[in-house]
Amino acid sequence: MTSHAKPAVVLLSGGLDSATCLAICKDSGFIPYAISFRYGQRHAIELKQAAIIANQVGVAKHVVINIDLGAIGGSALTDTNLAVPKHELASDIGTEIPLTYVPARNTVFLSYALGWAEVLGALDIYIGVNALDYSGYPDCRAEYIAAFELMANLATKAGVEGGKLKIHTPLIDMTKAEIIRLGLSLGVDYSQTFSCYDPNEMGTPCGHCDSCLLRQRGFEQNAMSDPSLD
Amino acid sequence: MTSHAKPAVVLLSGGLDSATCLAICKDSGFIPYAISFRYGQRHAIELKQAAIIANQVGVAKHVVINIDLGAIGGSALTDTNLAVPKHELASDIGTEIPLTYVPARNTVFLSYALGWAEVLGALDIYIGVNALDYSGYPDCRAEYIAAFELMANLATKAGVEGGKLKIHTPLIDMTKAEIIRLGLSLGVDYSQTFSCYDPNEMGTPCGHCDSCLLRQRGFEQNAMSDPSLD
Repeated sequence: MTSHAKPAVVLLSGGLDSATCLAICKDSGFIPYAISFRYGQRHAIELKQAAIIANQVGVAKHVVINIDLGAIGGSALTDTNLAVPKHELASDIGTEIPLTYVPARNTVFLSYALGWAEVLGALDIYIGVNALDYSGYPDCRAEYIAAFELMANLATKAGVEGGKLKIHTPLIDMTKAEIIRLGLSLGVDYSQTFSCYDPNEMGTPCGHCDSCLLRQRGFEQNAMSDPSLD
Repeated sequence: MTSHAKPAVVLLSGGLDSATCLAICKDSGFIPYAISFRYGQRHAIELKQAAIIANQVGVAKHVVINIDLGAIGGSALTDTNLAVPKHELASDIGTEIPLTYVPARNTVFLSYALGWAEVLGALDIYIGVNALDYSGYPDCRAEYIAAFELMANLATKAGVEGGKLKIHTPLIDMTKAEIIRLGLSLGVDYSQTFSCYDPNEMGTPCGHCDSCLLRQRGFEQNAMSDPSLD
């Protein structure tokens, strides 16, 4: 890290993708500022893992923002009255938007990241969205990110004063296997990442939800087992 | 209100503009769902007034979302280490962005409104932004709102499935005096609206901040005094 390095805000969930995204941001020469969200989700394990990952990779600061998506309902990940779907990959069964979609989630998360970037004087935001394994979420597509970036440049002082804010999505066109391969080359410790939508009471991944299945397939394609299950 | 009336989400701060915006939404035949935010601001009086106004106008539901812009700092409205500027109107002294600008505030607020609209099946969001008295806030301009609308239609199920989400800004080109005149014709009780950035400990408006001065001028131009000061 040199004194010329620029700050960047990185969305960090504690999952495999965002951990890789953080490592890429750091490897690109930015000083990472990691932001995580506590949003009425059923489990908080991923936030604990986010803190561990932030520390392992090395960030200037890690903040956890409390937000209340539960108050507006509508997703199996925040609404305890809806069951998390099991034993099927949404990406394998068509383009239908899955029950685990959280309304406007990435828009809310990116908005906070934008506010923090403005305060820090940062013009770069990293988010680990993925369109290939995207499982039907509208807010993981390149055209959505491009529209958010356009809006962000009109929303902020930096944009008004001639700066150019950029939303980086280094994983957007990669397969899960490719993401893992790149992350391993950058030293990401995947045993500390957590992606399960529906862990048991001990915090063990279920191994059967959409997110667990995608992850296992990615490690299998790299001829290894998921280190978080060891 | 008929059974054919459609739901709309309305951002309601408890101030003069948003109260007028809510009355316009209702008068246009929508069933209003009001959303307010507790965002680490110094005073909570406006939230009490928002509840009173929601009840007076009549809404299907009023929710208050807790958010923490204070954690990312950067504005005299959320950061207690910065003083609120007095005795000057930012719009009178040039185009500089004032200290009372809250980073990404409207983007964060509209993102929550978008999430709630999606859950409600609403395609309409009302926000009382104003470009004329806009005091230098980048996120109160028409081009910003248009960009948010474009992004919102790519972010959501409704957009993906062919719906068209609209951000309504009925006040955007009106003077404060015109807003007040329209609101009075719709029965808005301005004695219950609260706009001051820096009230005293009893909750009385200071009468000297940017927001108080704009408001007083608007009532003067309607040949009346501000009823919230009576």
